[in-house]
Amino acid sequence: MTARSLGVVTPQTAHFDEPLTLRSGAILERYDLVYETYGTLNAEGSNAILICHALSGNHHVAGLSVADDPKTAGWWDNMVGPGKPIDTDRFFVVGLNNLGGCHGSTGPQSLNPKTGKPWGADFPLVAVIDWVHAQARLADRLGVKVWAAVVGGSLGGMQAMRWSITYPKRVRNAVVVAAAPYLTAQNIAFNDVARQAILTDPDFHGGHFYEHGVVPARGLRLARMLGHITYLSDDVMAEKFGRMLRGDDLKFGFDVEFEIESYLRYQGDKFAGYFDANTYLIMTKALDYFDPAREAGGDLAAVLARATARFLVISFTSDWRFSPGRSREIVDALLAARRPVAYAEIDSPNGHDAFLMTDAHYHNVMRAYFERVAAEAA
Amino acid sequence: MTARSLGVVTPQTAHFDEPLTLRSGAILERYDLVYETYGTLNAEGSNAILICHALSGNHHVAGLSVADDPKTAGWWDNMVGPGKPIDTDRFFVVGLNNLGGCHGSTGPQSLNPKTGKPWGADFPLVAVIDWVHAQARLADRLGVKVWAAVVGGSLGGMQAMRWSITYPKRVRNAVVVAAAPYLTAQNIAFNDVARQAILTDPDFHGGHFYEHGVVPARGLRLARMLGHITYLSDDVMAEKFGRMLRGDDLKFGFDVEFEIESYLRYQGDKFAGYFDANTYLIMTKALDYFDPAREAGGDLAAVLARATARFLVISFTSDWRFSPGRSREIVDALLAARRPVAYAEIDSPNGHDAFLMTDAHYHNVMRAYFERVAAEAA
Repeated sequence: MTARSLGVVTPQTAHFDEPLTLRSGAILERYDLVYETYGTLNAEGSNAILICHALSGNHHVAGLSVADDPKTAGWWDNMVGPGKPIDTDRFFVVGLNNLGGCHGSTGPQSLNPKTGKPWGADFPLVAVIDWVHAQARLADRLGVKVWAAVVGGSLGGMQAMRWSITYPKRVRNAVVVAAAPYLTAQNIAFNDVARQAILTDPDFHGGHFYEHGVVPARGLRLARMLGHITYLSDDVMAEKFGRMLRGDDLKFGFDVEFEIESYLRYQGDKFAGYFDANTYLIMTKALDYFDPAREAGGDLAAVLARATARFLVISFTSDWRFSPGRSREIVDALLAARRPVAYAEIDSPNGHDAFLMTDAHYHNVMRAYFERVAAEAA
Repeated sequence: MTARSLGVVTPQTAHFDEPLTLRSGAILERYDLVYETYGTLNAEGSNAILICHALSGNHHVAGLSVADDPKTAGWWDNMVGPGKPIDTDRFFVVGLNNLGGCHGSTGPQSLNPKTGKPWGADFPLVAVIDWVHAQARLADRLGVKVWAAVVGGSLGGMQAMRWSITYPKRVRNAVVVAAAPYLTAQNIAFNDVARQAILTDPDFHGGHFYEHGVVPARGLRLARMLGHITYLSDDVMAEKFGRMLRGDDLKFGFDVEFEIESYLRYQGDKFAGYFDANTYLIMTKALDYFDPAREAGGDLAAVLARATARFLVISFTSDWRFSPGRSREIVDALLAARRPVAYAEIDSPNGHDAFLMTDAHYHNVMRAYFERVAAEAA
C-alpha cells in the first residue's frame, strides 16, 4: 500500500453553548473547538479515531493546511493519511485544538464575554480531564459514540489515558506514546523555569500583553530553547551539533559561537513569533497537574482498573523527558489492573521528539496495532 | 583525628602589574587576585595545595568569613581544615577568586583603567588557561614553586587538568572531581539558555547595568533556577520534593503550587541578590571553551601525555551534568598516555552537587589520597 497525502484540509469550528465546569471550579459558559477530520465515518460509527495533541500542537494533524502559504503539512502527517499507519482510507480521524489553545479554539486570545476584551491570563487554567470532557462533546456532535482509538504522544498520551479512565465505555483502544503517569519534580522544575521566563518578561503585562501591542517574546523564546533541550537526547545533540563552531575559531563574545547555540536561538525565535505565551503557561500547567492516580491515593492500577480499553504503550530509549521507565510504570499498573496492554520500547537516538519522527520499527508497531483496530471496527 | 574549624579567616589581595595576555588576545594590564591561605608553607615549600573554584565559587574555601554577619563557612569547609581530608595541619592551602569573578578579584565590577568606569561587559572573556596563568603568578608571589596538589570540582577540576598540562613541572598531583574533558552540546545548550536569560533581560543594559543602578535579576534568577535542575539528580529531586504541594490542593494559578517550585524560586532569588551577571556570563563561557584536546586535533591522551602529575579522578553515579562516563574519558586518556591515575566512582544520589557534600566514601577516598600526598611532601 502506497502512502499518499490527504491534500489540502480545511479546519471546521464547532460552537458549544452548554457551560463546561472545569476541574478548577471555573465555568466556561460557551466555547469553540476548531477541528479537522480525515476519512469517512462508517455507518456503524465504529471507525473513529481521536488524535490528541501535545504542548505546542493543534488540530492540523495531517494533510496540507489551507491557511498557510506555503501550505504546511500536519504535525503527524507521517503517521496519519491514506496508506499510513493510521490509515484514513479505513478510519475517520479527528484532530482538534484543545481549550486554552492558540490555534482557533477558545483560549486566552478569545474575547472574555464578561469584559469584551481578550481573556489573556484570566482564561481559566485547565486540566487534562477538562479537555477530555470537551472532546467528548465534540464526539457527540460528530456522531461518534465510541472511539475505535484515542491516540496521543506526550501530553496527548495523557489525554488518551484520561479518556480510558473517565469514559471507559467510549474508548476501545488507548494508544499512549512517550508519556508518563505524572510529572516528576524535575519535569515540573523545567516547566516552572519556562513559566517564570514568561511571567517575569516585562512584556507579559500580567498576561494582558495583547492590549499593549506586544508579546513576551524574550520569555517565550527562553521557554522554547529550554524545551528543545529536553526534547532531544544528549546523544543526538552530540551527533548533530557536538562542539561544532560557527566560525573557524572561538570569538570570545556572546554572538553564536557553537552551532548548537544557533539552532536553539533559531527555534526559540521562530516559536516566539507564532505561539501564544498564555497558552504555553496553560499547557505546562495541564502537564504538571496530570496525576490520575491521585484520585486513588496514588494507586495508578486502581484508577486504570476503571478502563475497559485495550492499551498500546510506546516509549523511546533515549527519551529522558518521559523515559521508558515512566511508560513501564503505566504498563505495570495496567498489568496489575489486569487490563490488556501491548508495550513497545523503540530503540531511537532522537529523544522525546522521536514520537513525531519517521522510524520504521515505531511505524510498523503502530501499523500492526491499527490493522487490528481496523479489523475490530469492520 | 578530630576535625576542627579554622576559625575566622581574613582574605588577602595580591596586586599584579605585569600585563597578562589572555587566550582571546586581549591584554589585562594589571589585576588583583583575592585569596585566602590556611596552614603553613613548610621550609621546603613542598606542602602547598591550590583549590580551584567552580562556576559560582570564590576564595573563601574554608573557615569562617570575617566579612559576613553571621559569619559563613567556606564552600568546601567539610573537606579543608584541621583534621579534615585536606588537612591544614599538614598542608598550606590556597584558595583564590578567579579573574572575572565578583568576590574581590579583578572582574566586571572593577574599574576599567581606560574609562574610569566599571568594566561591565567589556571585561574580556577568559579561558581556563588564563586563570591557570594568573594562579601561577600568585604561586610565585607566595613562594610556591611546585604544588603538592591542584584540586577542584566541576570547573575547578578543569583548572586542575589544565595546570597538569600547562605547567607539568609545577604540579605533583592533580585532583579532578565531577569534571569533564569538554562540554557536550547539551551542556553548552543549558549554558546558552542561562546566558540568553541574562543578555535579554532589559535590566542588563548591554552589561553596563551598574551605571543604571539596577541588576538583571530576572535573568540571573532564571539562570540559577536552571542551573539547580542540572546540579541535582532526578532521583534526589523526587525524594526531596516529589509532587508535594505547598497547600492542600491545586490552586490553578501561577504562585507556588509544588514545593519544587518554591525551592527553585528561592534559590534563584537568593543568587540574583549577590552574584554578578557579567561574572556568570564569563564563567559559563570559560566552561564552554574548555577543550584541551583541541590542541592535539581532539586527542586528549596526546595532550595529557605532557603532564607529569599523578591523577585522582572522582565522579558521582547520579551526576548527569558531568556523568561518570565523562570522568572515564579522562581516565581512559590518562591510561592511554601512561599517566598514573586513581579513579573512584562514588555511589551518590546527590547529582553534580555531591562534590560539595559530606559523603563518607568520597571523603575517605580523598583522605587516603592526601595521606599519600602528605607523605610525599614530608
